[in-house]
Amino acid sequence: MTQERVLTIIDRETTYTIGATDGTTLLQALRQIPDILLDAPCGGNGNCGKCKVRILQGEVSPPQPEETHPLAAEELSQGIRLACRTYPLGNQDLPLKIATIHGRGTSQVMTGFSGGTPLEVLRFHAQEIHLKSSSVEDQRSQLTRLTDEVAVHPAMKNPRTLRKLQRQIGRTSLNCLMDQGKAVALLNPGDNAFGCAIDIGTTTVVVYLVELLSGSIVDHRAALNAQKRFGADVISRIEAVSRQANGSELLQRSIVQQLDWMAAELCEAHGISEDSLVELCAVGNTTMLHLLLGVDPATIAVAPFTPVFTESLSCPVAQLGFKHISDTYIHLPGSIASYVGADITAGVFASGITRQTDPVLFLDIGTNGEIALWDGAQLHCCSSAAGPAFEGASILHGTGGITGAVSSVSWVRDDQGRIRKS
Amino acid sequence: MTQERVLTIIDRETTYTIGATDGTTLLQALRQIPDILLDAPCGGNGNCGKCKVRILQGEVSPPQPEETHPLAAEELSQGIRLACRTYPLGNQDLPLKIATIHGRGTSQVMTGFSGGTPLEVLRFHAQEIHLKSSSVEDQRSQLTRLTDEVAVHPAMKNPRTLRKLQRQIGRTSLNCLMDQGKAVALLNPGDNAFGCAIDIGTTTVVVYLVELLSGSIVDHRAALNAQKRFGADVISRIEAVSRQANGSELLQRSIVQQLDWMAAELCEAHGISEDSLVELCAVGNTTMLHLLLGVDPATIAVAPFTPVFTESLSCPVAQLGFKHISDTYIHLPGSIASYVGADITAGVFASGITRQTDPVLFLDIGTNGEIALWDGAQLHCCSSAAGPAFEGASILHGTGGITGAVSSVSWVRDDQGRIRKS
Repeated sequence: MTQERVLTIIDRETTYTIGATDGTTLLQALRQIPDILLDAPCGGNGNCGKCKVRILQGEVSPPQPEETHPLAAEELSQGIRLACRTYPLGNQDLPLKIATIHGRGTSQVMTGFSGGTPLEVLRFHAQEIHLKSSSVEDQRSQLTRLTDEVAVHPAMKNPRTLRKLQRQIGRTSLNCLMDQGKAVALLNPGDNAFGCAIDIGTTTVVVYLVELLSGSIVDHRAALNAQKRFGADVISRIEAVSRQANGSELLQRSIVQQLDWMAAELCEAHGISEDSLVELCAVGNTTMLHLLLGVDPATIAVAPFTPVFTESLSCPVAQLGFKHISDTYIHLPGSIASYVGADITAGVFASGITRQTDPVLFLDIGTNGEIALWDGAQLHCCSSAAGPAFEGASILHGTGGITGAVSSVSWVRDDQGRIRKS
Repeated sequence: MTQERVLTIIDRETTYTIGATDGTTLLQALRQIPDILLDAPCGGNGNCGKCKVRILQGEVSPPQPEETHPLAAEELSQGIRLACRTYPLGNQDLPLKIATIHGRGTSQVMTGFSGGTPLEVLRFHAQEIHLKSSSVEDQRSQLTRLTDEVAVHPAMKNPRTLRKLQRQIGRTSLNCLMDQGKAVALLNPGDNAFGCAIDIGTTTVVVYLVELLSGSIVDHRAALNAQKRFGADVISRIEAVSRQANGSELLQRSIVQQLDWMAAELCEAHGISEDSLVELCAVGNTTMLHLLLGVDPATIAVAPFTPVFTESLSCPVAQLGFKHISDTYIHLPGSIASYVGADITAGVFASGITRQTDPVLFLDIGTNGEIALWDGAQLHCCSSAAGPAFEGASILHGTGGITGAVSSVSWVRDDQGRIRKS
């Protein structure tokens, strides 16, 4: 029978108290602590050797044969262990004292972009809608008055818009955000409309704050995907879901908390009320989008690689568990297939390559790498895991793009004609 | 400047600790305590005289002139006060000890109904949808496979259905709940589909648990509307919203918590998982529906009586703040006007009177009374406040339908030919 116990874990100066059942590995236990981002590119399979911790105090299971391969005998003698192969033991009257070894650096995420083909047409524009004053003879509701004047997108009929509509009651003109001839949101007088464009990479997550009417990017936040502790690539992330009963929920909570916090921070930094935040739009590979909705992506990992959905979808963020940002909507553009996600559809659309007559190659080299070839008439796509080349999984001394990692090297010839590192 | 203080209130045997700002009346403070349902039919205007409490200990503001009209001098001398006209004073080192006087009885809510015109056609039926097995040649997503076989309602494209779809992946047939030719929900194998039909009356709230395929009512829960403490009728409820900055939010939270709890209790009592709970459907007068969505109904109270919305609307319950039931949807049928709500549209529809050729009168006598006359070709509606006749507002000795109130009287002639109460 599994037994629930309380673990006291001390990492460096900080003490954490967490619940764990028998059979929980130290890696699983540490994943519950948001402060500790223990790198586990293989997802806890015992073969990447990255989730090293040093046991300083407390009782744990003895080293397993698997640990002797990635760990040198010398490391084992120093108390260094693989967290994914180590089980806390005993009654833990003595707190478990550890020192994390990898994954402590600040990550460096590339977020800049420039030039390219700009979007030819801005999607949104504002439109003033004039309403007749209500009277005893004309008792139509405020929403009916609006829908009688302008085509309204069904998504606009929601509690949030109704509250906004109420606050503007009595006004004879309303300012609507229009998208393809339909009103999609009500704007507050004198206010701009904002959106967040979100790129959920397997390794990194970037949230851009966008002013919708001008299309300009106000600011951004970038971070390592908090799910990284569950595995570096889509396959190990999918395995992490299947390894525990509430796996989907756990990984969903992880990414939702992160996006929630990043979007809220951006809004706060720029004094943007949630009322002006019209929509979040999130792209990512098909697995990332499954995990965002809490949908188990298991079938993506095995032949015939069927995703549960590739369709585009919108829902209130509250439904996904957002807390700081809670009264807006999130939109997921459609994906193409299990390994060609909405990041590609969005990239192809935004870059405008399908409006070119000459062939264009679109490359998205991330942890998962996708290539789309526009031949002037048709789009051809393929994808492959590209991550291990950049992220140091399954190699002894490699690491991801953290502070301290070599990110560029250049050589110059000095006065004496000798070549040296600049 | 308003100052936040902590009030310790002892009512009978129970001690409550709540926060209150300067200028908060005792009624406003007590409204924060779900256990105390202090009757305040006038909504705190000082003229119904129902929110009586006896001050047993602690410092409060002296009696105001308004209190001498509804309270007898004798009552005042006994420490009886109107909670809506009394302000807690002092540092409250001494807890405020009170005794509530009214509103302690268990309410009796009429929930039974019988006979009448049954719905001729059950809205829902189940349909088995056959899917081709997926293969490397056919990598359509599971949702695409389903939408390629059957018309799917847009509302079905949501995270919850996708999770259900994932759990049934590999099955070559799916059981769908159909509504007017469109799939609206995915059924679990061997499971029934349930819904909750909710009647939000100004005074009473009833939640019926319905088995959707058979249309049979499994069980129900009935209670006084928890918003009653904010006022007995729609007008005093609307005034309660305008009297405080977060009024809409406060009244919304009150009804949402109540419905959440009632629906969750019904599901638990009958072992129904949230997965099988397809939808809640809530009707009520237009003000009640505004309050349910957190929309300020202020303009309903003043000429020209414009509601913010009369349209029908669906949204995830999580968006309204449901917690126990959090992964289903709520549907609000359309209303007709500010004082002719969705309860009437639903009642007229369910009773089938518009399918009759003879004239029919449809009466809904509640706190708000509505009458609909079907003349064989057209429906005519009117409404008026009917509550005071039944609820004892603004009268000295009256009370609502609580235990102990006289609810029926009959007289019989005894053996000696004398008339006496039976």
